[in-house]
Amino acid sequence: MLHGGDYNPDQWLAYPEILQEDIRLMKLSECNVMSVGIFSWMSLEPEEGKFTFEWMDQLIDRFAANGIYAFLATPSGARPAWMSAKYPEVLRVASNRVRNLHGFRHNHCYTSPVYREKVAMMNRKLAERYGNHPAVIGWHISNEFGGDCHCPYCQEAFRVWLQNKYKTLDSLNHAWWTTFWSHTYTDWSQIESPAPHGETQVHAQNLDWKRFVTDQTVDFCRHEMEPLRELTPSLPITTNFMEVAGFSGLNYWKFAELLDFISWDSYPTWHDADNEHDQAAWIGFNHDMFRSIKGGKPFLLMESTPSLTNWQAVSKLKRPGMHLLSSIQAVAHGSDSVQYFQWRKSRGSSEKFHGAVIDHAGHEHTRVFRDVTEVGQALSKLDEIVGTSVKPQVAIIFDTENRWAVKDSQGPRNIGVKYEETLRKHHKPFWDMGVSVDIIDMDCDFSAYKLLVAPMLYLVRPGVGERIERFVENGGTLVCTYWSGIVDENDLCFLGGFPGPLRKTLGIWSEELEGLHDRDVNGALMKDDNALALKGEYEIHELCDLIHLEGAEALAEYKSDFYAGRPVLTVNKLGKGKAYYIAARIKEPFYHDLYRTLIKEAGVTRVLDTNLPAGVTAQLRTDGIHDFVFLLNFTDQEQKVSLDEKDYADILNGESFSKSVELSNFGVRILRRNAK
Amino acid sequence: MLHGGDYNPDQWLAYPEILQEDIRLMKLSECNVMSVGIFSWMSLEPEEGKFTFEWMDQLIDRFAANGIYAFLATPSGARPAWMSAKYPEVLRVASNRVRNLHGFRHNHCYTSPVYREKVAMMNRKLAERYGNHPAVIGWHISNEFGGDCHCPYCQEAFRVWLQNKYKTLDSLNHAWWTTFWSHTYTDWSQIESPAPHGETQVHAQNLDWKRFVTDQTVDFCRHEMEPLRELTPSLPITTNFMEVAGFSGLNYWKFAELLDFISWDSYPTWHDADNEHDQAAWIGFNHDMFRSIKGGKPFLLMESTPSLTNWQAVSKLKRPGMHLLSSIQAVAHGSDSVQYFQWRKSRGSSEKFHGAVIDHAGHEHTRVFRDVTEVGQALSKLDEIVGTSVKPQVAIIFDTENRWAVKDSQGPRNIGVKYEETLRKHHKPFWDMGVSVDIIDMDCDFSAYKLLVAPMLYLVRPGVGERIERFVENGGTLVCTYWSGIVDENDLCFLGGFPGPLRKTLGIWSEELEGLHDRDVNGALMKDDNALALKGEYEIHELCDLIHLEGAEALAEYKSDFYAGRPVLTVNKLGKGKAYYIAARIKEPFYHDLYRTLIKEAGVTRVLDTNLPAGVTAQLRTDGIHDFVFLLNFTDQEQKVSLDEKDYADILNGESFSKSVELSNFGVRILRRNAK
Amino acid sequence: MLHGGDYNPDQWLAYPEILQEDIRLMKLSECNVMSVGIFSWMSLEPEEGKFTFEWMDQLIDRFAANGIYAFLATPSGARPAWMSAKYPEVLRVASNRVRNLHGFRHNHCYTSPVYREKVAMMNRKLAERYGNHPAVIGWHISNEFGGDCHCPYCQEAFRVWLQNKYKTLDSLNHAWWTTFWSHTYTDWSQIESPAPHGETQVHAQNLDWKRFVTDQTVDFCRHEMEPLRELTPSLPITTNFMEVAGFSGLNYWKFAELLDFISWDSYPTWHDADNEHDQAAWIGFNHDMFRSIKGGKPFLLMESTPSLTNWQAVSKLKRPGMHLLSSIQAVAHGSDSVQYFQWRKSRGSSEKFHGAVIDHAGHEHTRVFRDVTEVGQALSKLDEIVGTSVKPQVAIIFDTENRWAVKDSQGPRNIGVKYEETLRKHHKPFWDMGVSVDIIDMDCDFSAYKLLVAPMLYLVRPGVGERIERFVENGGTLVCTYWSGIVDENDLCFLGGFPGPLRKTLGIWSEELEGLHDRDVNGALMKDDNALALKGEYEIHELCDLIHLEGAEALAEYKSDFYAGRPVLTVNKLGKGKAYYIAARIKEPFYHDLYRTLIKEAGVTRVLDTNLPAGVTAQLRTDGIHDFVFLLNFTDQEQKVSLDEKDYADILNGESFSKSVELSNFGVRILRRNAK
Repeated sequence: MLHGGDYNPDQWLAYPEILQEDIRLMKLSECNVMSVGIFSWMSLEPEEGKFTFEWMDQLIDRFAANGIYAFLATPSGARPAWMSAKYPEVLRVASNRVRNLHGFRHNHCYTSPVYREKVAMMNRKLAERYGNHPAVIGWHISNEFGGDCHCPYCQEAFRVWLQNKYKTLDSLNHAWWTTFWSHTYTDWSQIESPAPHGETQVHAQNLDWKRFVTDQTVDFCRHEMEPLRELTPSLPITTNFMEVAGFSGLNYWKFAELLDFISWDSYPTWHDADNEHDQAAWIGFNHDMFRSIKGGKPFLLMESTPSLTNWQAVSKLKRPGMHLLSSIQAVAHGSDSVQYFQWRKSRGSSEKFHGAVIDHAGHEHTRVFRDVTEVGQALSKLDEIVGTSVKPQVAIIFDTENRWAVKDSQGPRNIGVKYEETLRKHHKPFWDMGVSVDIIDMDCDFSAYKLLVAPMLYLVRPGVGERIERFVENGGTLVCTYWSGIVDENDLCFLGGFPGPLRKTLGIWSEELEGLHDRDVNGALMKDDNALALKGEYEIHELCDLIHLEGAEALAEYKSDFYAGRPVLTVNKLGKGKAYYIAARIKEPFYHDLYRTLIKEAGVTRVLDTNLPAGVTAQLRTDGIHDFVFLLNFTDQEQKVSLDEKDYADILNGESFSKSVELSNFGVRILRRNAK
Repeated sequence: MLHGGDYNPDQWLAYPEILQEDIRLMKLSECNVMSVGIFSWMSLEPEEGKFTFEWMDQLIDRFAANGIYAFLATPSGARPAWMSAKYPEVLRVASNRVRNLHGFRHNHCYTSPVYREKVAMMNRKLAERYGNHPAVIGWHISNEFGGDCHCPYCQEAFRVWLQNKYKTLDSLNHAWWTTFWSHTYTDWSQIESPAPHGETQVHAQNLDWKRFVTDQTVDFCRHEMEPLRELTPSLPITTNFMEVAGFSGLNYWKFAELLDFISWDSYPTWHDADNEHDQAAWIGFNHDMFRSIKGGKPFLLMESTPSLTNWQAVSKLKRPGMHLLSSIQAVAHGSDSVQYFQWRKSRGSSEKFHGAVIDHAGHEHTRVFRDVTEVGQALSKLDEIVGTSVKPQVAIIFDTENRWAVKDSQGPRNIGVKYEETLRKHHKPFWDMGVSVDIIDMDCDFSAYKLLVAPMLYLVRPGVGERIERFVENGGTLVCTYWSGIVDENDLCFLGGFPGPLRKTLGIWSEELEGLHDRDVNGALMKDDNALALKGEYEIHELCDLIHLEGAEALAEYKSDFYAGRPVLTVNKLGKGKAYYIAARIKEPFYHDLYRTLIKEAGVTRVLDTNLPAGVTAQLRTDGIHDFVFLLNFTDQEQKVSLDEKDYADILNGESFSKSVELSNFGVRILRRNAK
Repeated sequence: MLHGGDYNPDQWLAYPEILQEDIRLMKLSECNVMSVGIFSWMSLEPEEGKFTFEWMDQLIDRFAANGIYAFLATPSGARPAWMSAKYPEVLRVASNRVRNLHGFRHNHCYTSPVYREKVAMMNRKLAERYGNHPAVIGWHISNEFGGDCHCPYCQEAFRVWLQNKYKTLDSLNHAWWTTFWSHTYTDWSQIESPAPHGETQVHAQNLDWKRFVTDQTVDFCRHEMEPLRELTPSLPITTNFMEVAGFSGLNYWKFAELLDFISWDSYPTWHDADNEHDQAAWIGFNHDMFRSIKGGKPFLLMESTPSLTNWQAVSKLKRPGMHLLSSIQAVAHGSDSVQYFQWRKSRGSSEKFHGAVIDHAGHEHTRVFRDVTEVGQALSKLDEIVGTSVKPQVAIIFDTENRWAVKDSQGPRNIGVKYEETLRKHHKPFWDMGVSVDIIDMDCDFSAYKLLVAPMLYLVRPGVGERIERFVENGGTLVCTYWSGIVDENDLCFLGGFPGPLRKTLGIWSEELEGLHDRDVNGALMKDDNALALKGEYEIHELCDLIHLEGAEALAEYKSDFYAGRPVLTVNKLGKGKAYYIAARIKEPFYHDLYRTLIKEAGVTRVLDTNLPAGVTAQLRTDGIHDFVFLLNFTDQEQKVSLDEKDYADILNGESFSKSVELSNFGVRILRRNAK
């Protein structure tokens, strides 16, 4: 297991005693890996063509001498001021068509030939110099790719991208439905990226721009990797992704083939609400997605904070236990590391108050340092878990293009269509019940799953409807909702009746979708003797789909309004499987009740065949011989978990259990059992 | 009666079967008119100078063959991308002096010589080709004119406009009071339009800019009309206006002489509040204003939605009955049409989820289609109402220049001076009591009215004070409020004492006006035996005017604060009439109590001499022989309305009544009686 | 005592009868001074090089003939349109690098050579013409200096300023910690001012930019003064400052040496809350600070409103008594004047509804005119107070650079670190108890004080820690709080342990600072028999500092959370003094309880040795022989104040008291007693 963090010794070159002290403290805290060079371009090339690798040489050698490994970063996440001054083209242009001044980070054009040339040169030199160094175990490409550029180079690249996609302007004009408001293009040069003082509401144009930005960023990443692949073919490569609640700018699935492994930066705001359950489940959702991107392969937690961040509305300290718990949570979902930003707090500038292993006080006698050391000690006992994974029987579709489209289109509730929140509602029951899930793109293979959950599948790419139909016919269980099957891959509405390519599978026709005001509710009345055996009434809010049965059976109906009595929950039998349709946005405990029934019906296995206390989840990794069961208590109370009479050994402290196990507040257990 | 909508077949030229199907469905839904070509410039002139009228030829011929009429639009509401690319001057410049990129619609300079040339050429060709076609019954100029342009052409035109108005810089400098903050202009070229990074607070300059923008838009509209008047002198011309709550950019009264009839686009957000009364009354206010602009001549409802809009915060479906009710409401206030945007939902782009007669499903088996058909059937029974109107005895002054000025000047309550809301408070009682009103500009002739309501008449143009004085002297009843008679037509304060030119008529002097915080209230205590016979106390909030009597009589006095006991409601007798002054912003039921008394006192006739249930209004149209009484029930309950023993016949279903009539929830009745 | 206001007769040159009437009304209202020419550049130089002084000649002569004095303003606060047109460089450039258009005021570049040349020429002419006129008693430089300019001249000046400060780029790079995100500068030309599309988060850069803006503004002011000093060496010079709640753009302490006396513009929003106490205390805070800037020398109240302002959210009239009360409040804290903006309401443009002595009605028969006259009569009785001051024993540090730094740095609570609000909490007890305070910069001499209050002393400039240490050692009492001693003068964190240079004095180490959500609280439990004799529990919110004792003694401890029992209030004895540390943000009545105890312990004298009613304060001025005790009742109730048996004479009405005195609602008393 890797344990470490971003290390920026170039901030401290004028403080040599600190650099010495760092090594002592790394060893003391059981850190074995550091990410270096992430923002070091100025320290590596202070003048154009003049390289100063000496400090890095010393650093890497010192690491090697002390048993510390390094992820070596390419420094493209920020560029030198001299480069901005000499080559303004490297500076990003905002959507208002104003070129940025030098400043911040991630402020460069991914298309700029000069920037690409400079990056290639730098990366080649790094690979030549450090590619075979024993301390270096992998490449860390740039940092948190993101953002877009609207410069002339990018406009031209966008047009070429569109020509490749559409071949003819007629084809583009149809896909973008440009006849609306007389937007038809008659020359490729007329097309611009979206702009606040130009066009922002042609949805397919927005969608294509986002696709282009992803593709151009992937291409830039590939460009960065070329000299590395050539010179260091055996070194694995990653780039660090961001948490998907805050960032939706890139379709990370498009990086899957390029990278050797996934890594991401996780900054939950613990202690931000009355309880930690929802936050913990959402972070679990993220971990599951990053594991799913490479088909279940372990990922790395590349950044996290050992205490607080400095850029949230309110900066909360981690309560005792939370640092170990949240670190092991990453491992529970498939991470083979716990790493931090950053090793030592900067003395000045914008993130100087961001939590770090070493505080400005400079010594190890802090609560945070002790917490970090505790994690280091725990990770040192987990060697057997490295490389193991999980094969979930449940998958939830969280598709980036669908996300972009459903949030951009103006429709039934412009005050918030709540795609992510809806996903969270559908995911939480599995977290609560200790059921492993994959979070997948709609292009993934569905055949290995028993239960497929596809909320708000507004945009359906070609072939997906057919693949879902086959999944059900072959015995799978599908759950779908309102506002699905509305548009094709270009945000063009399906003609003939919604939910378009899902209509046959679901056996319903959706005629109208209404938005409810925040103050309004309706009810879903379960029908007598319904097949799910659910009873009584659930509250409905926000969205109500008025549907007609076309083969499906109604399980519940609307309670009130002019559509009282019309179906609100249906099931359609198709082949060996079943397809459920939830026509309205229903409040809890509906999702818990529904999925509790469905996992039984579909034969989905839980990690532990037991009822977990609220706020406690169970996650699994396995090597086929042993199962590693992670019990994570995200409550501030002690909790007791019943076991299933198998033999369990606690890896962290050697204790054995079979009937039950206790968890301290914010406590964690890692239990080994024999795999079935 | 006309029934139809915007029809955009150029979106569907690649789907010929749909164009056929449209004709069938139009006839099925009893639609007899379509507005065509509104955003068709690209389809009509895909390259500069290359015209493609064939599809339009076929369309219009097909209409003629099927008994469908067309309003033919000039396509200037959006322009081709080739034009923006070749002639950037056609693109609008924002107040920050940045020229827009191509995009959206209504994004062109009204001054640009190139744009005017292109528009003239296009309109001439349309007139030549379709001006005598039997299907074409009128011109629809452009679409929803609005916005301003700050390009050099417009700056120059603004300076010329100012020279025409002021003749000398001395005159302008005095009117704009430029000595404040040393703004005196010494050359016309120094003057710019308002700008966020220039000047925004010289109120007279802002006011003149708004006047200029209206005049320039009117001039552009006149320019559009020139070839049409020349080639098709018998075809009537309109342009579609917008609802005046959301849009205040143009003084629509300046278009009155230019156009043959008024038309407007109405998009209320039904089912947005606990009840529909206020919304319904406000829409009635709009209808009344658009009828008043052409002196009572019937107007057309040019756009409305048959179901929902897609651009509100929450998109509500129309409850059963509401589509017929809100459509007939337009007719009740003077419309000779019910038309929709749009006939068929677009397949893509920004308004693809805007309600339309034909949904993406493509067939007639929808609730919306049935609602539309019901309206079509109802309208087909109203031939005798076409061309009739009403002669109200009450007028409310809602003056655009006053609106601009009172909302722009910084004064007693900058968190919202609430001009429109105040107008609504003064208007609602008439709607509730079934009293017809005109909504007029302060330049209109007052002599035909018995009661003139002029709330917050902050700006008083020359001669208006005198005309109001004559109105009262001749026996009229005037109601005026705080914050009246403050500035002249250039936002220069009247010297010598407020309310300036209204002081003699009202018989009071206003010394100080205070703003109240939202949490604060005062009271208006009715004086014993006051002439209005009102009793007790009304609550006051927001604004309190401290006045002195100068001939008027106090009817009520302030309850508290240091001005307790001072007059808050007064009446002044002048000649044969009376002038009431409301010194503070008073809460309901004050306005209902006041106007109930005043309509009796002034001898104003109600449509029905009965008390209407809350949420039900009565509106009138008449041809002098028959009265057409519209009863509109904007509640979700059945309602019973007492009649006045005359003979009433329900035009829609032939039933007869004389004592009372019942209305279903969201129900409507159109009753014919003999006119007095 | 001076009484008067801004007078802008150039607005009324076309109304000669008004200019005559003004003189009569000035004398009637006991006004003896007017500030003239403030925005008169256009009236004085309508064309480049053509000067029109005649109207000013007549004005000043008329003043002299009527016993009215003038502060003569330099007109640089707004410039002629002809100058903007001919020399665009005089127009300010915003941080987005867009040059303003002509408009508003204060819209010029302080660096522009042309603007400086024009200002020098104008000021020289004014000094030549009016410098020896008997009516002119002082210079009023420009008006409310403020804002920044980002033009190329200013960028270059900024770079020169940085070179002077840092000498080398290495030094700058270290101070700005530019290695973070690879920002290291290798050429001075790479450095730009902060920009939204450039850099905004390098805190030391932001801080230096603000310092530069102050220095450049001071330099511009000095430039304005040069011809005046040369030609009119005996005329005193001031410039009018702004209230420090709304304006933080300039470090006013840097003007102290340049100016002969301080003057400021006070616009409190009276009657804005349930009571006036907090507002009144805050205005007192401002007065105290402006008096402290020149070491206790009397200042002038240069602007205030006799009724309401027109630019607040809600414009409240002054209740009866409030105008006299708030005017005398200024005198109580050290003002030798009461002056207004403006004498006569403008007829048009942006501030035409701003309160003025003469309303648009134009005569003296108004409540406001009577209130002003009452102030004039009162001031005429206060000759003996002119020039007197006060020597407080308490000082509160309110440091502008600290303010800039602590609000810019991202840290524990980014939703508002509340520096000013915290100052107000620490100041209010002294106002309530009638204890005179100085509001000082951290560079001031502390030795004359007994009690030094330094809340949130986040930034500590070199030497300050040592001077505070000496202050305590020598017997002073220090009160300090959380988030102190964090960074040096460049926002670089102190290494080794917080509170850095204050650690020894306070005897504690601060390990971690946590932010609390708005909904969360903790408690401070006073320890049994603590040295302050405070009892029970106080509520804590927002910020909790986790400290370790290093010699200090705990007086209270946290009640809950994982740090329950750790110290939250400590005292450290050092030499002859004591240093208190408040580790958390505590709610009232903590500060009142604390300071009530500390002023006794430290031997601080109150103005009156009595308990004042809530909402009443006592302030002092003295000439050493007589004390002038100001009793100010900011409640709407009558109040009775116990006296200390000395002999008191009411200066305004001649009454005598010794046991007690009554105050009317919003009433004021000025009592003379013999000084001790």
